[in-house]
Amino acid sequence: MFRKLLVANRGEIAIRIMRSAQELGIRTVAIYEETDKTAMHIMKSDEAMCIGAGPRKDYLDIDRIIHAAKASGADAIHPGYGFLAENPLFSRRCTDNGLLFVGPPPEVIADMGSKVVARRIMTEAGIPVIPGTPVLSEGEAGKEQAVRFAEQHGFPVMIKAVAGGGGRGIRAAQNMDELVTGLKLARSEARMAFGDESIYLEKGLKNPRHVEVQILADRFGSVIHLGTRNCSIQRRHQKLVEIAPANLPALVIERICADAVRAAKAARYVNAGTVEFLVDEEDQYYFLEVNTRIQVEHTVTEMVTGVDIVREQLRIAAGEPLSLRQEDIQIRGWSIELRINAEDPKNNFMPSPGAIRVYQSPGGHGVRLDGAIYQGYEIPRFYDSMLVKLTVYGFTWREAVDRLRRALDGFSIVGVPTTIPFYKQIVQDPDFIEQRFDTSYIDTHPHLLAYREEAPPIDRLARLIAEINAYGYNPYAQDKP
Amino acid sequence: MFRKLLVANRGEIAIRIMRSAQELGIRTVAIYEETDKTAMHIMKSDEAMCIGAGPRKDYLDIDRIIHAAKASGADAIHPGYGFLAENPLFSRRCTDNGLLFVGPPPEVIADMGSKVVARRIMTEAGIPVIPGTPVLSEGEAGKEQAVRFAEQHGFPVMIKAVAGGGGRGIRAAQNMDELVTGLKLARSEARMAFGDESIYLEKGLKNPRHVEVQILADRFGSVIHLGTRNCSIQRRHQKLVEIAPANLPALVIERICADAVRAAKAARYVNAGTVEFLVDEEDQYYFLEVNTRIQVEHTVTEMVTGVDIVREQLRIAAGEPLSLRQEDIQIRGWSIELRINAEDPKNNFMPSPGAIRVYQSPGGHGVRLDGAIYQGYEIPRFYDSMLVKLTVYGFTWREAVDRLRRALDGFSIVGVPTTIPFYKQIVQDPDFIEQRFDTSYIDTHPHLLAYREEAPPIDRLARLIAEINAYGYNPYAQDKP
Repeated sequence: MFRKLLVANRGEIAIRIMRSAQELGIRTVAIYEETDKTAMHIMKSDEAMCIGAGPRKDYLDIDRIIHAAKASGADAIHPGYGFLAENPLFSRRCTDNGLLFVGPPPEVIADMGSKVVARRIMTEAGIPVIPGTPVLSEGEAGKEQAVRFAEQHGFPVMIKAVAGGGGRGIRAAQNMDELVTGLKLARSEARMAFGDESIYLEKGLKNPRHVEVQILADRFGSVIHLGTRNCSIQRRHQKLVEIAPANLPALVIERICADAVRAAKAARYVNAGTVEFLVDEEDQYYFLEVNTRIQVEHTVTEMVTGVDIVREQLRIAAGEPLSLRQEDIQIRGWSIELRINAEDPKNNFMPSPGAIRVYQSPGGHGVRLDGAIYQGYEIPRFYDSMLVKLTVYGFTWREAVDRLRRALDGFSIVGVPTTIPFYKQIVQDPDFIEQRFDTSYIDTHPHLLAYREEAPPIDRLARLIAEINAYGYNPYAQDKP
Repeated sequence: MFRKLLVANRGEIAIRIMRSAQELGIRTVAIYEETDKTAMHIMKSDEAMCIGAGPRKDYLDIDRIIHAAKASGADAIHPGYGFLAENPLFSRRCTDNGLLFVGPPPEVIADMGSKVVARRIMTEAGIPVIPGTPVLSEGEAGKEQAVRFAEQHGFPVMIKAVAGGGGRGIRAAQNMDELVTGLKLARSEARMAFGDESIYLEKGLKNPRHVEVQILADRFGSVIHLGTRNCSIQRRHQKLVEIAPANLPALVIERICADAVRAAKAARYVNAGTVEFLVDEEDQYYFLEVNTRIQVEHTVTEMVTGVDIVREQLRIAAGEPLSLRQEDIQIRGWSIELRINAEDPKNNFMPSPGAIRVYQSPGGHGVRLDGAIYQGYEIPRFYDSMLVKLTVYGFTWREAVDRLRRALDGFSIVGVPTTIPFYKQIVQDPDFIEQRFDTSYIDTHPHLLAYREEAPPIDRLARLIAEINAYGYNPYAQDKP
């Protein structure tokens, strides 16, 4: 096992990675931008290095990060998610500099990063793929390809950036007009977002569910899966609520997991990854993409399998064979994860940085927190707005929902608006409680945003505590003249 | 299901009970003494009632508690552990007043509370019981009985109060002199502690392990077990570290669990309970006692089985049949629980109340917290010194130990000495890591108390945060003239 790990990330995922590293006796190095110097991941690390003035650009600066790793004597780098996690050049540069990269080799990241190459590999491996086109030609020729595809497969048609992924670089066209205008818009958006205007088309499924399979693969060609997740509840292609396992017939679960393992083998995958599928109303599934990194929602899989996925990532990166066989993996109960963000759901989920005046969090049976804030923390406006990830477990689905409701009630975050009131609506919604949801859920449930702002009793008490904190408590104050 | 539950307790167990009740949609009523009015269990309840000036006596006052329950419209009472939890009169008075008591009927509490009656019931049921005497006669006759018993079975001999339990009311005699003087001391101690000077003898086992089995029993005679716990690491018969499952051969586990279920049936047990055993060096086990309440260490069983024991308690009390069959219960991985107390391990574990200036706690995969404190809380000197229960889970024993070490490092409690530094020693001890421990562990490892006091880096950072909290943060302060 290596001795020192630089975590090339910030926030909750940096802390989550450091925890598993520290458990394995690996020393951890945090990096931070000057604009992020009060961040909690710095405090949770064994060492921390400032890599620049920020904001954001230095967390994306491969040279500075490699330099920090060498200067600190780290022998490995974990990229987390976002930032450089799916940049094949970063993986390559780590390796070239004698640093273990905790993730797949650059070729795998590059192949899976190109949605067109990934589709080809999966098609060859016999994995069901949504009908789609190769990369569209430019100009009129591309338009003709698109019209022919729509005539053959019907609408909706999804216009996708080759370099997109994780819900980014997708437009839906419901008719020929939207398709034709969408092609131009999609190209210019893709150029702006990814520096690559290549696009292709896929048949749109009607209200599909988003189901993904967590896989682990070692350097020796062994691949196992850790079961399914349902991440259908999304807003603008961004996941909001994630669940393990997916609620599908046992036979479908078995087949989709087996196909995910085949997909990973076809991609020559190494380390932890996620094979994403769309599932239609007849439970037919289609390959969507492979995410070549740890995902936000890995926690729900950890809850139902009991496996520490980051621990396995570190072991695999160190060259160890998988410590688990497929038959060691049992799915028990249900898990739900929510991202509690400093955003105002009533105001189009606008990020709302500010100071956390009071922070109290729930605990007890079946409640897991992956946080990156503390009472007194001033949220910088430059980074993503996630404050804490709440993951609950229940022996039954109903118990998990009950626990989620209780845990949401147990938060007291004073100082910034958060997404908690919105989640409280979801958790009371009969469709959610009955597991009736697909990717159209948020659009078809606009009333979930129509909640009354109300300070829960716990917040009023928490304010009292903050006062006691600041001014002291005198139980006899009221008895005095 | 009933609608409103009064929790006749305080601290972490009151909060833990309220959590499960709230998940089931049951409204919760907290009670508190005036001397305990800043306690966290009050904040976590839906309603709270002051039951007296305190300290301690009102939490033990059956009339006041029954009155509070009726005044608040509660239809059930959960006693937690300690206080009135194992007082058969309390169970009786609840029932007489039309309140559901979340625990066994009074007869069962009385039978199991008398160690002599419990031994008789178990002997009749064919459960292995440590050789022992009936209640000793008074005066010379009792002394003669004792001498004969010691001659027959050898030393050590345990002198036990009939009304004792949970580690209280026990003296060990290593030779005839200690036995003879011990009889008198034990009688007077028992009279002082329990108001009943009846004592009896048991053969002392050599360095036994303490293994217990969690059981659940409904009103219809169904009983299941949730596997074993090893609670051998004790100081003065008080458990310090609790582990699930016990590390015993599979066949022994199977037999001890089956015997625990038989024991519960023989006792006509209803609700959650624990059947405690001592296990000798040849893995032979002997019945010790039945605890007729939820136990501090129930969390480790919840971690490895995924079952919410308090939820089941509430359902059983409401008259529902068990929701789980024995075949639904699977033990997965390992769990370890520690009680983090405001005590000074270097000063004979002296309780050390004070104000919590900074409180930060660990989180992430496999970490569960059951706490009752908050930053700014002034610990009253009248109650038990437990601040927070830390329970960790690991897929393997080694992973659980690694996680325990990491989680202990993640605490920052400034303001009072705690038992954390002592636990940090245990978690690094080779005997602990290799699972070599029995009830002699603490006595045979005195060097674990020989640690250097050292503020960990996280505490220094936490102090900085407290300052920022109080005075604000100005990143440019040092640049200014």
